[in-house]
Amino acid sequence: MTIREQITEMAANAKRAARQMAALPTSVKDRVLGHMAELLLAEKDFIQQENRKDLEAGRTKGLSPAMLDRLELSDKVIAAMVTGLREVIALPDPVGEVSEMVQRPSGITVGRMRIPLGVVAMIYESRPNVTVDAAALCFKAGNAVFLRGGSEALHSNLALALVLQKALLREGVTGGAVQVVPMADREAVNVMLELEQYLDLIIPRGGESLIRFVAKNSRVPVLKHYKGVCHCFVDADANQQMAVNIVINGKTQRPGVCNALEALLVHRSVAATFLPLVGKALSAAGVEIRGCPETCRILPMAVAAQATDWGYEFLDLILAVRVVDDLDAAMDHIVAHGSQHTEVIVTENYSHAQRFLREVDASAVMINASTRFSDGGQFGLGAEIGISTSKLHAYGPMGLKELTARKFIVYGQGQVRS
Amino acid sequence: MTIREQITEMAANAKRAARQMAALPTSVKDRVLGHMAELLLAEKDFIQQENRKDLEAGRTKGLSPAMLDRLELSDKVIAAMVTGLREVIALPDPVGEVSEMVQRPSGITVGRMRIPLGVVAMIYESRPNVTVDAAALCFKAGNAVFLRGGSEALHSNLALALVLQKALLREGVTGGAVQVVPMADREAVNVMLELEQYLDLIIPRGGESLIRFVAKNSRVPVLKHYKGVCHCFVDADANQQMAVNIVINGKTQRPGVCNALEALLVHRSVAATFLPLVGKALSAAGVEIRGCPETCRILPMAVAAQATDWGYEFLDLILAVRVVDDLDAAMDHIVAHGSQHTEVIVTENYSHAQRFLREVDASAVMINASTRFSDGGQFGLGAEIGISTSKLHAYGPMGLKELTARKFIVYGQGQVRS
Repeated sequence: MTIREQITEMAANAKRAARQMAALPTSVKDRVLGHMAELLLAEKDFIQQENRKDLEAGRTKGLSPAMLDRLELSDKVIAAMVTGLREVIALPDPVGEVSEMVQRPSGITVGRMRIPLGVVAMIYESRPNVTVDAAALCFKAGNAVFLRGGSEALHSNLALALVLQKALLREGVTGGAVQVVPMADREAVNVMLELEQYLDLIIPRGGESLIRFVAKNSRVPVLKHYKGVCHCFVDADANQQMAVNIVINGKTQRPGVCNALEALLVHRSVAATFLPLVGKALSAAGVEIRGCPETCRILPMAVAAQATDWGYEFLDLILAVRVVDDLDAAMDHIVAHGSQHTEVIVTENYSHAQRFLREVDASAVMINASTRFSDGGQFGLGAEIGISTSKLHAYGPMGLKELTARKFIVYGQGQVRS
Repeated sequence: MTIREQITEMAANAKRAARQMAALPTSVKDRVLGHMAELLLAEKDFIQQENRKDLEAGRTKGLSPAMLDRLELSDKVIAAMVTGLREVIALPDPVGEVSEMVQRPSGITVGRMRIPLGVVAMIYESRPNVTVDAAALCFKAGNAVFLRGGSEALHSNLALALVLQKALLREGVTGGAVQVVPMADREAVNVMLELEQYLDLIIPRGGESLIRFVAKNSRVPVLKHYKGVCHCFVDADANQQMAVNIVINGKTQRPGVCNALEALLVHRSVAATFLPLVGKALSAAGVEIRGCPETCRILPMAVAAQATDWGYEFLDLILAVRVVDDLDAAMDHIVAHGSQHTEVIVTENYSHAQRFLREVDASAVMINASTRFSDGGQFGLGAEIGISTSKLHAYGPMGLKELTARKFIVYGQGQVRS
């Protein structure tokens, strides 16, 4: 069989499995998830033995220590996957929820019932724990899942898939419900992007070039998140100590993630007092400041920002800092350089807070809080499958509900339309 | 300027206009819609004079009488557009609605605020009234709208656009909020499909080949509805007179629309009694029956169905009829031949009704009611912009709410993440 034939057959299997999945009671889904947790621990030796093949190949290929670290399925990583599964079991099953039932003038009763999306495909890079995390969320929401991981994690992903399949089998659920693409060839991705008749959604996770490639070439709907360039605007009326805390937390608590702070905008009227305050705290935390001319004039430790520093996702201990004239100038900067991820205003001015909340177009808009809260767990969605920065279907962190759709249901007593 | 440059500039204008639109108060939007209604009547002579150019060109080109009829902006059609505008004014504005506010353990308060999608593009065929109907709905939901109508309606659409622009101007709203592509070249469509940086959504309306072309080539998210192949399953326990009424209404009340009934599935145990009953009524209504062998055995007026008749959207007084063994066989047929539009069961059996409701994957699933109710107006959404038969973002009739998204909003008091 060619790669095209294999991938197509697997996707068709997933579509068939989706029909069984949609009717699966919550109790069966939760039992399967429980078996997954149990088997991950029971089969740990096998999983780590396969994982070592990937790690050795990675070392030979000269992967960076950071990449090897992401690749490793240590005891700690496996324990985290098990905890994740237990958390997904505890989440309420969104499927079957009926809402908005109303009686219409015609006499029919109309409402909406939440249903799975069908087949959810994920295309992701290195971390093999995504295989388990994504499978669990998609599965709980009643979807068949079709996973394509990074080539450098192929042995690890296939070992995890074997364990997950064993868990399905224990409850008589078809193996089509959770599948991992068993080859490293790029051609497999190209074929997946064409299979609109079998796949309902593709979620790419990884570098920007992977995501752009998928978005450009897919006929299947894509939920994407390119990058997080989060701003914090410190208004004239801000509580300055609060602003320092929010800036330091956003920039330094975990600099390598998408909800980290990348740029600080400061109202001109408080620049002379606030910048020295925040500059001192940033320097103490080892953060490099790339400033506009006004910032550099006030802060001796700042280096001059280049044009490319505005709107740049540093993912590092670097912060772009700019003095702006007012709220409108801050929002103009965000429109020009933001990534529609998370934007924060620090202010005590009620009208400014409300204008910022209403007018800024980002998946999460915050008043007086750290960008680091922009996360499915922190927002109360439970685990998240990703963060969407485009508005169709979902905008922001996506939990179980965002892996479902709603259909209309109608109860009649023989009504016809006149 | 090349077509590419013109379309790109218009789309960039729309994106800029979207920012103004998002902040527009409901009262201003409703006043603009009111001016549109008033100006359509005041400028009727101008509109009809431009419309006559399209009609004459259409006649010269040999368009069918049905197509010329769809093209004509008669007094009646203009009056219907005005009524439509008044109805949209009466609909509640979904933008700004805040819901699901909860306090999280961290102390932040998180909720969701409904916001416009941004720029909504429509690509449609003949009927120029879509120009006004679609513009009104998108506008009320706070979106900028970018319209590309059929080449045969170009003069009509541009005349309508001029009138709509005049209404915008009266309230100081930028003309970028409602734009009509001013050229008939197909190249304009190709450029639109690439402009993901400016367009948030494309809704194609028209024949299946147009929709498939847009879905296949667009980098912008597409909400699509290919066709409506609606089935009615008459169960063993059905009230047979009710079933006859539902079949006749579904097939004959308006055969040319997507929620008309195209296929009837009859439980084997009642075929001998029900088929003669419904056959007589269908014949009296002038409906041609294309039956499976069993149907043809029972009904002398039935002609043998070809394989292509299953899953075919006749849009005419033709009905495919098949005898099936049971509920599962009916649902298997619907999986194989349905279009995920609207599916009906007629039954008095509680368990069958619930299984059908839960298990059938279609945007609308009904018990004991006519497929013809599958409509935004009948469901209580107000006017509809289209019907989505894919599950992402919206599934089924799409009203004002489906032209919006929700962002997360966070109220903090200086919280940082630990």
